[in-house]
Amino acid sequence: MKIAVLGTGIVGRTLGSKLIAVGHSVTMGSRNAAHPEANAWAAEAGERAAVGEMVINATSGGATLEVLSASGPGNLAGKVLIDVSNPLDFSRGFPPSLSTSSDTSLAEQVQAAHPEARVVKTLNTMSAPVMVEPGLGPGHHNVFVSGNDEPARAEVRSLLESFGWPAEDILELGDITSARGAEMYLPLWLRLFGVVGKPQFNISIVRG
Amino acid sequence: MKIAVLGTGIVGRTLGSKLIAVGHSVTMGSRNAAHPEANAWAAEAGERAAVGEMVINATSGGATLEVLSASGPGNLAGKVLIDVSNPLDFSRGFPPSLSTSSDTSLAEQVQAAHPEARVVKTLNTMSAPVMVEPGLGPGHHNVFVSGNDEPARAEVRSLLESFGWPAEDILELGDITSARGAEMYLPLWLRLFGVVGKPQFNISIVRG
Repeated sequence: MKIAVLGTGIVGRTLGSKLIAVGHSVTMGSRNAAHPEANAWAAEAGERAAVGEMVINATSGGATLEVLSASGPGNLAGKVLIDVSNPLDFSRGFPPSLSTSSDTSLAEQVQAAHPEARVVKTLNTMSAPVMVEPGLGPGHHNVFVSGNDEPARAEVRSLLESFGWPAEDILELGDITSARGAEMYLPLWLRLFGVVGKPQFNISIVRG
Repeated sequence: MKIAVLGTGIVGRTLGSKLIAVGHSVTMGSRNAAHPEANAWAAEAGERAAVGEMVINATSGGATLEVLSASGPGNLAGKVLIDVSNPLDFSRGFPPSLSTSSDTSLAEQVQAAHPEARVVKTLNTMSAPVMVEPGLGPGHHNVFVSGNDEPARAEVRSLLESFGWPAEDILELGDITSARGAEMYLPLWLRLFGVVGKPQFNISIVRG
């Protein structure tokens, strides 16, 4: 499948490499190399979204809505739009705040801005290495999926399985509003990162 | 030890019973039975805080600051104040919002309102049955501790161990500001509750 990856940070590059490794055709760009100006980059991101059959938003949370709006509504209509971004605000230092309140989520804002896209939130609750190499070590751990469109969620589950995620470790949280939970987990993730001391960790749901 | 438990909901009653079972002397009250009026109940909570050597805040998040202020500053000074509450706002239905932003936490507000208390946030990330019976089933899972005062955190770790928590499953997140992470996890907990279908679950940190 042709997949457009928006965002060229560590998350975008890691996902792009994995997608190629599992057989997809990936379009990516580099903000710094070819397009030093943000506006040109956003426009180029829009061109990339246009050619993708599926689009992955791996931009930083603060840039997400701007970049997606540059892609134009027609370029996202009907497509699965996987949102892995987080609404982190580093403007006041570390740890970052969330730029959203508990009454919304970035994923919902993306869905509202692009009602014809089929937005699915996933993978935002872990570091890039874990996203694409879920065989962390002994024991299971979980990835979450939120979205309004069941066929879109099923496509995303299949993609996650192709990354190595066991089907039973992929948990559907609910419609796109459930992305609030996944995004608001980030402040805890950041503290756990401090405790663990490396990004290779994740949470597992243990049931009694 | 004499421990005052503020809050007579399921969390307060469950913790009170466990504390008695492991050998402590517990003072609790009942808002509905003896003190039908909220003001009388808050004043009585203050009296209870006065006789406790340690105080546990298990009130609902919306009542926490009011109840603690009724206890009077002298009744909390120097004491370990374990805060298990969550800043959930159910006024607009389910799922609840958080009444705090990502720049603060209820635990920090409690510490700021009672600077001479030694506030430790813990146990707020799970249901009451799991708090006191951590032997959920196979595998480890975690409880978090946040607070500014190391001897107070050590007292809380000991109390958690007396509940059955293995020392290695008790994770210190950092100072009291790290309670933001623990509190902002609640929206995800609520979604996971919907997925799991029962309150007997918790998260485990899996390290690569």
